[in-house]
Amino acid sequence: MTRWALLLEYDGTHFVGWQRQANGLSIQAVLEHAASHLNAGKPVSSVVAGRTDAGVHAEGQVAHIDLAGGHAAKAIRDALNFHMKPYPVVVLSAAAAPEDWSARFSANRRAYRFRILNRRSRPALMAGRAWHVPAPLDDDAMHKAAQRLLGRHDFTSFRAASCQARSPIRTLDRLDVVRHGEIIDVVTEARSFLHHQVRNFVGTLKLVGEGRWPIERVTAALEAANRAAAGPTAPPEGLALISVGYPDDPFRLQEPISMATDASVIPID
Amino acid sequence: MTRWALLLEYDGTHFVGWQRQANGLSIQAVLEHAASHLNAGKPVSSVVAGRTDAGVHAEGQVAHIDLAGGHAAKAIRDALNFHMKPYPVVVLSAAAAPEDWSARFSANRRAYRFRILNRRSRPALMAGRAWHVPAPLDDDAMHKAAQRLLGRHDFTSFRAASCQARSPIRTLDRLDVVRHGEIIDVVTEARSFLHHQVRNFVGTLKLVGEGRWPIERVTAALEAANRAAAGPTAPPEGLALISVGYPDDPFRLQEPISMATDASVIPID
Repeated sequence: MTRWALLLEYDGTHFVGWQRQANGLSIQAVLEHAASHLNAGKPVSSVVAGRTDAGVHAEGQVAHIDLAGGHAAKAIRDALNFHMKPYPVVVLSAAAAPEDWSARFSANRRAYRFRILNRRSRPALMAGRAWHVPAPLDDDAMHKAAQRLLGRHDFTSFRAASCQARSPIRTLDRLDVVRHGEIIDVVTEARSFLHHQVRNFVGTLKLVGEGRWPIERVTAALEAANRAAAGPTAPPEGLALISVGYPDDPFRLQEPISMATDASVIPID
Repeated sequence: MTRWALLLEYDGTHFVGWQRQANGLSIQAVLEHAASHLNAGKPVSSVVAGRTDAGVHAEGQVAHIDLAGGHAAKAIRDALNFHMKPYPVVVLSAAAAPEDWSARFSANRRAYRFRILNRRSRPALMAGRAWHVPAPLDDDAMHKAAQRLLGRHDFTSFRAASCQARSPIRTLDRLDVVRHGEIIDVVTEARSFLHHQVRNFVGTLKLVGEGRWPIERVTAALEAANRAAAGPTAPPEGLALISVGYPDDPFRLQEPISMATDASVIPID
């Protein structure tokens, strides 16, 4: 068996999220179904770095699967892409990994971006990819408030009721609010996040951006350790998992993605 | 009557193009239908700066319409957006213009961007927004070749058979090929373009990027004044009309788009 690390991009708009669910199609189901074609039709299970919710996108999700046989990494990538063709899910890169390596448990850094479209008119080109906030937001105040959340804290106030993590304590390494014209990006990094943590940060920072909350109230919300003390959950469509970091990155020896040289599709079935 | 200049954004994927056609929905039909709600139900006709083809997008298209009554510019913008709500078409800004001003004939600069996704894996997040070219392209060679096309020339070799312009002579002011990682953007500016001119440029430059054409052959193709001497037409999905310039820009006195301050929708019907 070979353990394959897979770097994935997907548009989460029409999925129920990463994880298999009875009520609709998941990214996990699309990937595992494609992988079963490379495994003599037998089921394949995957492990993922970040279980994204319905409507949340990924530019650099990482998952792993185990497959028999000695395929080349490029053949694994191209074959999975061939079998996932009807869906907005692609493997950007595949790399062999040690058998004790885990896309989830070996990860020591996750980076997310939450995009806000801050203009009067609703999005046409960015529909489903950004949270539309028509009233002007003070991004400087949002950034200042965000810095109050950095470091090691009990993040109970920003944790979904459904969160399954044993501890609400996390160490937040980055939470930047940056405006590019009409777009405000909230970029965050940590070893790991609680369920809805980024969306709850953004829903709270928006209150600061609107001038409804002073910056100090964000500190108070954190210290309350009570979900009701923080702001509402921002909608999923603005969120994307950007990258996952590993102490020993399985993709480090891969050629740059844009410079792959073989031009033929080699499906395995 | 007031002449209204309208700055528009749209996703062209599911439209037959700007212009009304019998075989499907056009952006023109969506705009004019919305405008008729502001004109006591009577038909309104629009004039546009650049008639984009099916699948081509716009970030800064400009059109004009004439309406009776003394509405505020923001009310025109919001009312049109209200009535276009089911469609990926929005008015970013509306501005009153002189009655002899024309979105089409007053324009003295048009800028387009053609986006190529140059990587092995097909696009998931950029589907319908870029031309997927899996084999690596030499963007430096493409840029050098592009510079051969600058200036005043007979562009017959890059003109669609269906082009209705009286003259094939145009002055090309900019044709830059710039790579950002996996993305190659071809950015071009001129007073006006022939039908399919940008897509024919890109289809030809791709041959240079693949190493199939030496740079000199682009000069020869231009000089041949023969459509058959140039490369194929690139597909529409990579193309977007970015901006239209006017000697006396009707939007110049508008507040910055992202900083509009009224937060309530005021539909006019």
